[in-house]
Amino acid sequence: MNKEHIVALLQEVQSGKCRIDDAMEALGKLHLPSLEISQADGHRMFRNNFSEVIFCEGKELEHLCRIIDQFIAHGHNVFGTRLSPERAQMICERFSTADYDPVSRTLEVTLRPKTIVPGKLAIICAGTADVPVAEEARRTAEFYGIETQKFYDVGVAGLHRLLASLDEIRKADVAIVIAGMEGALPSVVGGLIPCPIIAVPTSVGYGTHLNGFTPLFAMLSSCAEGISVVNVDNGFGAACAATRIFHATSNANREK
Amino acid sequence: MNKEHIVALLQEVQSGKCRIDDAMEALGKLHLPSLEISQADGHRMFRNNFSEVIFCEGKELEHLCRIIDQFIAHGHNVFGTRLSPERAQMICERFSTADYDPVSRTLEVTLRPKTIVPGKLAIICAGTADVPVAEEARRTAEFYGIETQKFYDVGVAGLHRLLASLDEIRKADVAIVIAGMEGALPSVVGGLIPCPIIAVPTSVGYGTHLNGFTPLFAMLSSCAEGISVVNVDNGFGAACAATRIFHATSNANREK
Amino acid sequence: MNKEHIVALLQEVQSGKCRIDDAMEALGKLHLPSLEISQADGHRMFRNNFSEVIFCEGKELEHLCRIIDQFIAHGHNVFGTRLSPERAQMICERFSTADYDPVSRTLEVTLRPKTIVPGKLAIICAGTADVPVAEEARRTAEFYGIETQKFYDVGVAGLHRLLASLDEIRKADVAIVIAGMEGALPSVVGGLIPCPIIAVPTSVGYGTHLNGFTPLFAMLSSCAEGISVVNVDNGFGAACAATRIFHATSNANREK
Amino acid sequence: MNKEHIVALLQEVQSGKCRIDDAMEALGKLHLPSLEISQADGHRMFRNNFSEVIFCEGKELEHLCRIIDQFIAHGHNVFGTRLSPERAQMICERFSTADYDPVSRTLEVTLRPKTIVPGKLAIICAGTADVPVAEEARRTAEFYGIETQKFYDVGVAGLHRLLASLDEIRKADVAIVIAGMEGALPSVVGGLIPCPIIAVPTSVGYGTHLNGFTPLFAMLSSCAEGISVVNVDNGFGAACAATRIFHATSNANREK
Amino acid sequence: MNKEHIVALLQEVQSGKCRIDDAMEALGKLHLPSLEISQADGHRMFRNNFSEVIFCEGKELEHLCRIIDQFIAHGHNVFGTRLSPERAQMICERFSTADYDPVSRTLEVTLRPKTIVPGKLAIICAGTADVPVAEEARRTAEFYGIETQKFYDVGVAGLHRLLASLDEIRKADVAIVIAGMEGALPSVVGGLIPCPIIAVPTSVGYGTHLNGFTPLFAMLSSCAEGISVVNVDNGFGAACAATRIFHATSNANREK
Amino acid sequence: MNKEHIVALLQEVQSGKCRIDDAMEALGKLHLPSLEISQADGHRMFRNNFSEVIFCEGKELEHLCRIIDQFIAHGHNVFGTRLSPERAQMICERFSTADYDPVSRTLEVTLRPKTIVPGKLAIICAGTADVPVAEEARRTAEFYGIETQKFYDVGVAGLHRLLASLDEIRKADVAIVIAGMEGALPSVVGGLIPCPIIAVPTSVGYGTHLNGFTPLFAMLSSCAEGISVVNVDNGFGAACAATRIFHATSNANREK
Amino acid sequence: MNKEHIVALLQEVQSGKCRIDDAMEALGKLHLPSLEISQADGHRMFRNNFSEVIFCEGKELEHLCRIIDQFIAHGHNVFGTRLSPERAQMICERFSTADYDPVSRTLEVTLRPKTIVPGKLAIICAGTADVPVAEEARRTAEFYGIETQKFYDVGVAGLHRLLASLDEIRKADVAIVIAGMEGALPSVVGGLIPCPIIAVPTSVGYGTHLNGFTPLFAMLSSCAEGISVVNVDNGFGAACAATRIFHATSNANREK
Amino acid sequence: MNKEHIVALLQEVQSGKCRIDDAMEALGKLHLPSLEISQADGHRMFRNNFSEVIFCEGKELEHLCRIIDQFIAHGHNVFGTRLSPERAQMICERFSTADYDPVSRTLEVTLRPKTIVPGKLAIICAGTADVPVAEEARRTAEFYGIETQKFYDVGVAGLHRLLASLDEIRKADVAIVIAGMEGALPSVVGGLIPCPIIAVPTSVGYGTHLNGFTPLFAMLSSCAEGISVVNVDNGFGAACAATRIFHATSNANREK
Repeated sequence: MNKEHIVALLQEVQSGKCRIDDAMEALGKLHLPSLEISQADGHRMFRNNFSEVIFCEGKELEHLCRIIDQFIAHGHNVFGTRLSPERAQMICERFSTADYDPVSRTLEVTLRPKTIVPGKLAIICAGTADVPVAEEARRTAEFYGIETQKFYDVGVAGLHRLLASLDEIRKADVAIVIAGMEGALPSVVGGLIPCPIIAVPTSVGYGTHLNGFTPLFAMLSSCAEGISVVNVDNGFGAACAATRIFHATSNANREK
Repeated sequence: MNKEHIVALLQEVQSGKCRIDDAMEALGKLHLPSLEISQADGHRMFRNNFSEVIFCEGKELEHLCRIIDQFIAHGHNVFGTRLSPERAQMICERFSTADYDPVSRTLEVTLRPKTIVPGKLAIICAGTADVPVAEEARRTAEFYGIETQKFYDVGVAGLHRLLASLDEIRKADVAIVIAGMEGALPSVVGGLIPCPIIAVPTSVGYGTHLNGFTPLFAMLSSCAEGISVVNVDNGFGAACAATRIFHATSNANREK
Repeated sequence: MNKEHIVALLQEVQSGKCRIDDAMEALGKLHLPSLEISQADGHRMFRNNFSEVIFCEGKELEHLCRIIDQFIAHGHNVFGTRLSPERAQMICERFSTADYDPVSRTLEVTLRPKTIVPGKLAIICAGTADVPVAEEARRTAEFYGIETQKFYDVGVAGLHRLLASLDEIRKADVAIVIAGMEGALPSVVGGLIPCPIIAVPTSVGYGTHLNGFTPLFAMLSSCAEGISVVNVDNGFGAACAATRIFHATSNANREK
Repeated sequence: MNKEHIVALLQEVQSGKCRIDDAMEALGKLHLPSLEISQADGHRMFRNNFSEVIFCEGKELEHLCRIIDQFIAHGHNVFGTRLSPERAQMICERFSTADYDPVSRTLEVTLRPKTIVPGKLAIICAGTADVPVAEEARRTAEFYGIETQKFYDVGVAGLHRLLASLDEIRKADVAIVIAGMEGALPSVVGGLIPCPIIAVPTSVGYGTHLNGFTPLFAMLSSCAEGISVVNVDNGFGAACAATRIFHATSNANREK
Repeated sequence: MNKEHIVALLQEVQSGKCRIDDAMEALGKLHLPSLEISQADGHRMFRNNFSEVIFCEGKELEHLCRIIDQFIAHGHNVFGTRLSPERAQMICERFSTADYDPVSRTLEVTLRPKTIVPGKLAIICAGTADVPVAEEARRTAEFYGIETQKFYDVGVAGLHRLLASLDEIRKADVAIVIAGMEGALPSVVGGLIPCPIIAVPTSVGYGTHLNGFTPLFAMLSSCAEGISVVNVDNGFGAACAATRIFHATSNANREK
Repeated sequence: MNKEHIVALLQEVQSGKCRIDDAMEALGKLHLPSLEISQADGHRMFRNNFSEVIFCEGKELEHLCRIIDQFIAHGHNVFGTRLSPERAQMICERFSTADYDPVSRTLEVTLRPKTIVPGKLAIICAGTADVPVAEEARRTAEFYGIETQKFYDVGVAGLHRLLASLDEIRKADVAIVIAGMEGALPSVVGGLIPCPIIAVPTSVGYGTHLNGFTPLFAMLSSCAEGISVVNVDNGFGAACAATRIFHATSNANREK
Repeated sequence: MNKEHIVALLQEVQSGKCRIDDAMEALGKLHLPSLEISQADGHRMFRNNFSEVIFCEGKELEHLCRIIDQFIAHGHNVFGTRLSPERAQMICERFSTADYDPVSRTLEVTLRPKTIVPGKLAIICAGTADVPVAEEARRTAEFYGIETQKFYDVGVAGLHRLLASLDEIRKADVAIVIAGMEGALPSVVGGLIPCPIIAVPTSVGYGTHLNGFTPLFAMLSSCAEGISVVNVDNGFGAACAATRIFHATSNANREK
Repeated sequence: MNKEHIVALLQEVQSGKCRIDDAMEALGKLHLPSLEISQADGHRMFRNNFSEVIFCEGKELEHLCRIIDQFIAHGHNVFGTRLSPERAQMICERFSTADYDPVSRTLEVTLRPKTIVPGKLAIICAGTADVPVAEEARRTAEFYGIETQKFYDVGVAGLHRLLASLDEIRKADVAIVIAGMEGALPSVVGGLIPCPIIAVPTSVGYGTHLNGFTPLFAMLSSCAEGISVVNVDNGFGAACAATRIFHATSNANREK
């Protein structure tokens, strides 16, 4: 039962065609549509942005192609994460406009121009081993229309590298900070810049690194205030959190 | 060596009073001041807001009073977290303007009016046991000049309570979502609203609740995109992360 | 907006007092009531049974008394869990009809006679240290109108005790099996009887017992098929799960 | 020594053929048979249902075939779990009546018609990644003669999907609720329906998902009362627990 | 139903007083007694030794006194473990023959002389902090009639202390080796002596000692072959395991 | 420097060929030999038994062959554990007298007849999945000259199987009890028989089985007294612990 | 048997008073003394330094006093760690020369002047909560005669504080770096200075800080090379490790 | 901006070409160079030593070759760790002077003679399975110009092997002690020798060995004072820590 059905029902009540008891029963079943009605337009647009993303890992190739087909048929841009190079090749053969990036293991098909979100996102990462996660964040954010700037390989054991980029980093509106090993980079960055910081631990390491739980816990225990954290290796999730912030910022601008 | 010292040094070089070699040696030691110089005013203001907060747990009473004294002497507003009622009473006897809240266990001394940050922060919590953490977040955010709105006791086992508040929740610019038990609330909220969401797990529970690690891990594994998380019971940290977002939003407004 | 409000609204539509557009807007906000409407009577009764239980731990005495007052004022029976003897004494002084049991640490106030649910629940526990959890399960089940039979101290290291009671145990419709230590009892019972079994690990033990995680994991890894498990020490939860089964059984009877 | 042997022995005692001392010695060894005697017929039938299931993982192909042969020779229906497609193919070539399902990785050989158990089992799962576990539960339950209904891909981040199916779900007698990620679905379902709920965590996820321990612990810590839980990915075990409940329900019907 | 009852029953069958059907029914219930019959005398004596031990922790004082009373009334020696000094004092006032040892926190009441088991048990411990566990083992073993010899404070960081006692240690028939910290002592001892070794980790330590799990895991991972381990701090259990060995040894002697 | 060297040295001192200072220096270096001297014959024989065993996993094939060659050259029997079938085949081609068992993955080369140790070892295991560990224990024990008896597939969910074998099991002098899943078997056996029991957890399972840590912890937390435990899957270690007990028993016989 | 005894024995062999067989037997028992002989003087001095330290936690007051008495009687300096203020007061009343420090909870009694070890030890700590551990390290090092310099409250979230002290820190020969929270300080320091660094995690924190395991694991996973780590809160152990290095350095000086 | 640039800037100030304001602005950005300036020469040399090492795992072959090329082009010696034999072969074909060691999986290209650091490093390891880690430590240390001596296969279960080497071990200036299994070797060595000891746990083992966490925790809980620890399998890190000590020792020599 959608919006038109309810209007029709009310018209039947108005015209006397439908008894109030019967209308009550019909309305008693409409909780889902009523939920849909109350979801603002802005939200739906926002939700769509997210829902078009495909988590490719574990999905069969044929299944993936069907989803992509469907998205393209509806004129949606497509973004896929965690796609292996082998399967990407087969998909790219089928969808000639698909753009696959083997480092971030993401796939993008752009049909309609993206709405550019104002502001700049700094993507800061500690070591070269963290680059795939950083690139997943960067590609995701750019798919959502956000401008990014890379600051890679600026880990805390060679502090001068980070300090050399500090002036540039300060210009960002939001920062995603990615680190494996001991996960110290977000704490140091958090003490140096005032903008929202989303920290991402990575799973590269061994022994006490605990597949990323040590940097995860370190980031959650950070001595720098106001840092929030996403799951291990979740570059995509960090970019989504950043996108939520950029949308909030845009809304703020629009409203005032 | 501060800014004035460097200017003076350069003047001595200019006037020939100081040899270039000696100037080089003096400058070789100035990394800290040079770092200070490059920290923009906006940043310092922001950092100060954070640094005035006192984590009271584990600090001796006398030590606490001295810090508060010092803050007041400099005309700063004071905010203290994790302060037990017993010690709060002794502090309030000494500082008559101090406002202590036993639920959030926070202390506030307001000397100068706060700058109000535009926008609204929703503080959503699952059960009555999570209220102390929610209140720590609320009091912290209000100390930083942010308007808040409470949505308490709207846990997922009684979904109608959450749905009843949905329209109001949607009006918020940022949401802090607090839950113990299985920590499911941020996932449900994240699927319903588009704004930035900071999730806070709480330590109230027993057995497999693992003192808050189960809701923490559940939140980090959330099926709703773009949720970021802070440490267990860290209402203060969530409010700081929200503050970073509100400041970014304000800056965005200012700039355009 | 409740049921009466919707009827009134429809009557206004019928009479032409309210325009369809305005009715649409009003209905757009009613998802909660619509949800309530769709909840069958049987369910509400069932939900009520559960919602009247008070988890007393962590609630202030005054707060507890107010809840009890409110329940009594509405003519509801009251059941409280995890109530310490000290606080129970104060409550019993105030509510003369309250019945407190120090072993299970539960409180019951019975105002109206309970509906007796047909069938019998076996409460089986391994050692004397597990009795408090067993009693919490027993008292909860009896509050919900279920007849129970106790089989205590029948742990697997003295197998003859369990085997001696086997004929009696087989007569039960549902069994709650409680064990600490290595948590082996549900596996042995599960191999001997066919009825639904809800296993409860207890936290009494030390070292590798891991505060109940070892029996919890043992029960979840049981070689006896079809055993389901609740949280450590959760005698209340086990009784609720059993109650759900007894209600399903009663419904089955009613229907046929 | 079975029942007939004991009767024969007693007859020999009666007739004087056997001395009491010798009878005592013979009886001293009969604890197992005596145990067997006390196992009711209903139980044996029930136990048999369970024991015919073969956990295929880790068993050699030749060994598996021999077991299946033996079952078929005795006229038993056969059900196998955790069987890889490769080995399934070889088995199906040998047993032409075997029905293998690659999603649930289960094998069934039906020789005699199943006894249909009255009632309906809802199988509810959160995401597409949880479907294999859901299907293992569904196929197992149907092997035991239980009617099932599927509600797949109704995870909590898109709440409208679950609410849209709610009326149908409410008609079930028992529900199995399967979820990976943060494992929130059983809590939400548990608050909406009154029937027995068996929750199954799945191992699909990464990082803080802990291979299924996070949804497991979340389910055990659920804020919805009366939910019981089985091991990670244990769709088979959940169906067995449901079967125990359906048998109890049937017995209840029979008795009254 | 005990042995005499069965004989009586058979006599009634023999004499015709009891019908075979009735005898069958009576025997159908006797699985427990039949189990009892098959337990050899040696076993019962052995089991009794164990069953007379009282784990005092968590038992109420009055309950404890009643158990002791009962044991004394039956002429049994009494042994209690994990008894705090405060409660021990009250018990000793009531039972004048009770012998309490505050280090091992054990209580013994000896009414009849113990049967001395041939052989000698070495009790070896690493540090002074491990002495309470060592003493629990020693007192338990002596209660069971085993001669013990103490080798305390011979931890591996001062190897000469252990080597100085080696000749004496070699004369033992069984060794209990107790260690906290890194739990290395059993490995070193295991490489030096050939007799059965039962290792006991202790919970004294901090940080990575993990309340005894580090020495526990170290002992289970020992590079010295043939070492078996009991739970953390379980001096009592180690003595029981040793007692089982001494009984086996005695039996071996008796038989040959 | 071995025993003969010391005698020779003393003879030189006696004869005046060697000065006391020089003898002192030589003796200062002899702690190892002196250690060797003080190791009793029985011990050396015992140690040798153990040291001839080769842990094959992770050793290169060529390295393995060289060790075996060396053992054979010295007339020692050889025993290897954790040897894969592939590598075993290559070894057996080279050493025609080698006897490889693919279930236990052990290799034996018997050159000289083994000394038979009096007594009997029961090897009891819960399920078919535990058989490889049970067989490793059996083959190891038999290599050390111990007679064994198998009681396989007697897990606690089908208690009658264990009870049926109980009389036979009681005749054993030592029992090794092997179980995966919930690890309940040693507790049940421990309550039924008085002899020394060495429990072995196995790693077969999934989810909460924790690769064997759940049965390990369950066994260490057993409610049956006097059970000691070895590492996960350590059938070899259990047999070594049993061997130490059988040697102690033999010595006891010899001495008296 | 000490050195003199061996010489005497050899003289008896030389003179013919003692037979070679008897000498062999006597020497067979001398492994400990022979070990003692081979321990160099330097070592003994070193060992003594360590052995005079008393770990006070868990020792009874009377026992502590007796140890201190004994040390003083032999003219040794005394150092005690983990001594609570309450017990310290009682000890100081008895030993008037005792110097107790409540922050580090250490006690020192200095009888003879300490040998000053050349070089300087930097004690660097992140926050004020880490000071007790830092002071334990400092007091221990100074007891061993090492000069120390404090750099406290220089955590990474306020990087300028650390950088301001860098020139001074660089002059140290060894650095102990202490941090709680995310434990990032050693990584940052390790990238800035070349000397040996011993990292100490502290237990102050909550939630994901895991009582110090998060900084411990972070330090062990550090991206800065050549950092070694001691147990949580082990300021004493860090100072001992530093002392070993200073002694090695001194020896290096002496030798060349 | 490097040193020359600053001198040039000052000369422009001196000559009046550059205004003080402009110089201030330029200097405000130089924190990195100013940091560089303050790093002493000795440090840079030291840092370089470390930075030339390549962690090969996870890097692409082509990327590796480019790094090596670059190092060689600048005349640096090259050292690579964690390089698999397969990839090493391809590298060695390209760089004829490369020396690959398959046991330690390290690669070295020596272009200029190494500066020999005075002193000797003992590399002590418990079992043959620990040799790869030991060799990584040895090869790393030798790359840094340190003389090493091997003491392999001296685990604590055969104590005589360690004691036999003790005199030689005592001559070392620093010791790296490597052990898997229960990780007891560092404790025993630490009690016998006074020099700095760096302990390395290895990941070889199974079950309770926890992939090296058990020896890691055992070493951190060691009863021997002053032992510091590096990450599991981190032979490279241990050698770096040793190198820091040897450099400190050399500096000490130089200064005096």
